[in-house]
Amino acid sequence: MKMIIHIFFILSLVSSTSFASVLDFCVADPKGPQNPSGYSCKNPDQVTENDFAFSGLAKAGNTSNIIKAAVTPAFAPAFAGLNGLDVSLARLDLAGGGVIPLHTHPGASEVLVVIQGTISAGFISSANKVYLKTLSRGDSMVFPQGLLHFQLNSGKGPALAFVAFGSSSPGLQILPFALFANDLPSELVEATTFLSDEEVKKLKGVLGGTN
Amino acid sequence: MKMIIHIFFILSLVSSTSFASVLDFCVADPKGPQNPSGYSCKNPDQVTENDFAFSGLAKAGNTSNIIKAAVTPAFAPAFAGLNGLDVSLARLDLAGGGVIPLHTHPGASEVLVVIQGTISAGFISSANKVYLKTLSRGDSMVFPQGLLHFQLNSGKGPALAFVAFGSSSPGLQILPFALFANDLPSELVEATTFLSDEEVKKLKGVLGGTN
Amino acid sequence: MKMIIHIFFILSLVSSTSFASVLDFCVADPKGPQNPSGYSCKNPDQVTENDFAFSGLAKAGNTSNIIKAAVTPAFAPAFAGLNGLDVSLARLDLAGGGVIPLHTHPGASEVLVVIQGTISAGFISSANKVYLKTLSRGDSMVFPQGLLHFQLNSGKGPALAFVAFGSSSPGLQILPFALFANDLPSELVEATTFLSDEEVKKLKGVLGGTN
Amino acid sequence: MKMIIHIFFILSLVSSTSFASVLDFCVADPKGPQNPSGYSCKNPDQVTENDFAFSGLAKAGNTSNIIKAAVTPAFAPAFAGLNGLDVSLARLDLAGGGVIPLHTHPGASEVLVVIQGTISAGFISSANKVYLKTLSRGDSMVFPQGLLHFQLNSGKGPALAFVAFGSSSPGLQILPFALFANDLPSELVEATTFLSDEEVKKLKGVLGGTN
Amino acid sequence: MKMIIHIFFILSLVSSTSFASVLDFCVADPKGPQNPSGYSCKNPDQVTENDFAFSGLAKAGNTSNIIKAAVTPAFAPAFAGLNGLDVSLARLDLAGGGVIPLHTHPGASEVLVVIQGTISAGFISSANKVYLKTLSRGDSMVFPQGLLHFQLNSGKGPALAFVAFGSSSPGLQILPFALFANDLPSELVEATTFLSDEEVKKLKGVLGGTN
Amino acid sequence: MKMIIHIFFILSLVSSTSFASVLDFCVADPKGPQNPSGYSCKNPDQVTENDFAFSGLAKAGNTSNIIKAAVTPAFAPAFAGLNGLDVSLARLDLAGGGVIPLHTHPGASEVLVVIQGTISAGFISSANKVYLKTLSRGDSMVFPQGLLHFQLNSGKGPALAFVAFGSSSPGLQILPFALFANDLPSELVEATTFLSDEEVKKLKGVLGGTN
Repeated sequence: MKMIIHIFFILSLVSSTSFASVLDFCVADPKGPQNPSGYSCKNPDQVTENDFAFSGLAKAGNTSNIIKAAVTPAFAPAFAGLNGLDVSLARLDLAGGGVIPLHTHPGASEVLVVIQGTISAGFISSANKVYLKTLSRGDSMVFPQGLLHFQLNSGKGPALAFVAFGSSSPGLQILPFALFANDLPSELVEATTFLSDEEVKKLKGVLGGTN
Repeated sequence: MKMIIHIFFILSLVSSTSFASVLDFCVADPKGPQNPSGYSCKNPDQVTENDFAFSGLAKAGNTSNIIKAAVTPAFAPAFAGLNGLDVSLARLDLAGGGVIPLHTHPGASEVLVVIQGTISAGFISSANKVYLKTLSRGDSMVFPQGLLHFQLNSGKGPALAFVAFGSSSPGLQILPFALFANDLPSELVEATTFLSDEEVKKLKGVLGGTN
Repeated sequence: MKMIIHIFFILSLVSSTSFASVLDFCVADPKGPQNPSGYSCKNPDQVTENDFAFSGLAKAGNTSNIIKAAVTPAFAPAFAGLNGLDVSLARLDLAGGGVIPLHTHPGASEVLVVIQGTISAGFISSANKVYLKTLSRGDSMVFPQGLLHFQLNSGKGPALAFVAFGSSSPGLQILPFALFANDLPSELVEATTFLSDEEVKKLKGVLGGTN
Repeated sequence: MKMIIHIFFILSLVSSTSFASVLDFCVADPKGPQNPSGYSCKNPDQVTENDFAFSGLAKAGNTSNIIKAAVTPAFAPAFAGLNGLDVSLARLDLAGGGVIPLHTHPGASEVLVVIQGTISAGFISSANKVYLKTLSRGDSMVFPQGLLHFQLNSGKGPALAFVAFGSSSPGLQILPFALFANDLPSELVEATTFLSDEEVKKLKGVLGGTN
Repeated sequence: MKMIIHIFFILSLVSSTSFASVLDFCVADPKGPQNPSGYSCKNPDQVTENDFAFSGLAKAGNTSNIIKAAVTPAFAPAFAGLNGLDVSLARLDLAGGGVIPLHTHPGASEVLVVIQGTISAGFISSANKVYLKTLSRGDSMVFPQGLLHFQLNSGKGPALAFVAFGSSSPGLQILPFALFANDLPSELVEATTFLSDEEVKKLKGVLGGTN
Repeated sequence: MKMIIHIFFILSLVSSTSFASVLDFCVADPKGPQNPSGYSCKNPDQVTENDFAFSGLAKAGNTSNIIKAAVTPAFAPAFAGLNGLDVSLARLDLAGGGVIPLHTHPGASEVLVVIQGTISAGFISSANKVYLKTLSRGDSMVFPQGLLHFQLNSGKGPALAFVAFGSSSPGLQILPFALFANDLPSELVEATTFLSDEEVKKLKGVLGGTN
């Protein structure tokens, strides 16, 4: 009899607070409407442990490319459980000579930890000051939100790092692609960067830009 | 007698809530310690109406320079009353042919309104898509936080615009100065932008960079 | 061949991060569901440069009214690109003798810059202290979030100002309309403001209030 | 005639700002999509005064249960008007000997005020320090976000308190139910708490846990 | 021996994370510098349980005044433990006929619960719509951030309510005091509210205003 | 001559915006006053690249202890550059049979990536539902803010993981230490957890608790 009361109590408490538990998390439903705070929440009854795990970082990215490097993101909604939780990850693979070009994350700061190899990394402040470090296995470094930064393999073998962000959708703007891999007219690129027409057209050729 | 009660009530109410009123605003005291939320608050007893006003935008900036343009910021702590209020202003003066080079604001989105002349402006998204508009007097445009954007005078006479930010310290990173006006070694600039050694060294020469 | 690798790389990188770019911005879709963080995001494939621009501030507001003034807002969703970007604008037109009555913005602080004429402006703190300034062309002033403030034309000709807010939906509560232009019963207005019955009924008559 | 102008002005002003007023509040529509910032907003035309009021705290909770206590929440969406407003309430009823077991609110800090009786309350910091107080009628106490805390009736008769949170969905994780009222395998409970197998199985029996 | 290891482990873990525990809370040190996020933190070694408790709400406020009512706040720094925790309380005492005049809280929404008596309360939206409720013991109501609202005793005996805010410093701007209890020149009050000179001067006389 | 103008322009621009650059980051000065948003900022002139890097995660933690595991945090202020940037890291070392006991982070969500070995991890929601996963090298998992979670080595050899948080000071409350390693009176532990007196006293003995 006492047992029945106990169970009844627990059920009633759970049920009276179940609406709150929905907002412990908000697993991304990429088919629902988005909004400035992120993706819609999946029906909590359909959420499973798999929504909170992600295996996409287990495999090295393909570094057979112009930068001999790969960025593999674990952002929402691919990693659905991150939605709204203000944290995310990415994996950096750098073959020998590999480089992650200058880039920014408009929506979050980044912290990097080296797992393998040697990485030289740096960022540039609003005051145009450069902060450069060479990092070995286990070393970490932070890149403040929105500032230009880069990472390159300065060791002999391949390098691996994981990076974390204080947002589930930090964004990623890669400078040479922003400049040379779209249809921004060459004369605008030149006027706003001081680069020469020759240089701009050459790099548009390499990176697929037009205009 | 009744009057005395009234006044007493008001004084007591004012005094009991006076600590709260302190945080209606937090006028920047640039001599106090800073912290992630901004500048220390000036003693509220010393705050005057002048802390909430700023005349630094009244005069055109000097456009006799390489970009034929000037950015005059009204940020904290120069405009002390803005501290912590999540809004600020700047004035853009563009002589004929003037250009504000590609830049980002790491800490806030920007909205611009044209006061005089014709301005072409644009930004580049994380997906490398370009959004370009030519704006006339009274037209406004928004530039999302952290994304590369520019403004240039596409009219005949001088142009004037005011821009607003959703932060009292939005930051300002100007791309060509970040690349070419500091001591970031040329080989790192080249490796992380794909620019040629010749181009990098030429622009370092123009903009004062070393290494 | 090398070119193909390059292009492939860029495409794959763009595609792998395209979900992130969606949240560079969240252009308001006024037909989708709203939520505490703002409006739903328009499908990014349908976003154009026009979503980030707004021409509604180009024309003077109609000042042929009781206050000889007009407020023309550029808020979300009318200016759709602002949604979620924590910044917005409005245009103030004040004919000779024009006044923006006492009002608050519940959701953001405001910063004003005078474009033409002379404007006297002020706000009242929680401690009931008054901060008043007379502003000329190019002068700016900040009004902290949620505090009563006003602007009036204290010059001879018409005046024009732009104001910016640290929210895309700052709200606007105009005091005399809040008091006298709705059905709040006169006895409640009187009890909660100390105004006389005669005064309340007179102003309800002028401003269209009932009850 | 003047009257017509007045009314016209008010209507036009109201209409030009009506989209803003929508976001004065965002009454929860529990049938719409949720998202990290909360519930969808009910159509503002259908919002009434009843959405901003809640009578669910008027009646004492049922304390005929194992803890001789009841927590009655006033959170969103049950109290629909709270959605997005970053505040909520709950009512605590403690019969003689009643106790609210150790629990946390993952999403907000809590402040309690005693209405009737005597309540002993405490919380434990990250540094494992204990902060304990015995509170009488009218006394209040704050429990920082996410830290384990409890309340128990240390007086003779029944006790009543109201608690407030800085979120409309603060969440509620009750320690003994988290440990013993679900299917977390006993060996995992034991390994991660140092509790004995006997103790874990006994309490799983009492509280309805399995595995 | 094993015991020594255990203790050593705990001490080392506690010590290695002790800097983190400091920010479980930030008890206000009113003598240190303030800043937009609140008051400085008291040295955590000097924090005691008394910093997290407050007895100032236990006694009824003095209602022998013009409004037959009293607001007793429990805000930071008087209630020091609230600092930075985004929640606070106040006590409302309303004698027969008592009224809390129209007011706003610039920094937070408010939720009220009636403990004794009958209270009529209401708020006015940005769209000038009025939301009114009469509340009995145990009823609660929410007032969205920054909107004008009031509470008055509509029952026979005295009334008591507690209100909570989603900020430790919500601010409090009381309309008739903002208008009539300071040195804002009468002609500015009149121009910005449409009130008559006679009414303004009468109420300045009652409430202690000058100019 | 033209060169002088260029350099002059750059210097003037840099100087006019230098106050903004201060808030690109706010390197923790642990000797300055703290405040709810974090640590005071170090004088930017004394900030070096070393403030943004941290080598404390390079070495395995000492797992010769009761849990055969170690948590090595990289939080502010030890990793000074993280202050205010809303991201941090920690290293988890788990020897064979090692376990990180049930714990919460009151201030941030956590995301984990396995570097070596096999880790079983889980968290419990407010609705008392358990989400469990076994993770191999490269797998990641997210633990929502404030919810109880654990990690244990379920493989044969040692395991290593890095975890990231969306705060520079996420906090860490370890359940068995919160319950059994302080002076919270045994009868309060028992009343608020349903644990037996015998069990509580035994674990207080093991973990160093008193009372």
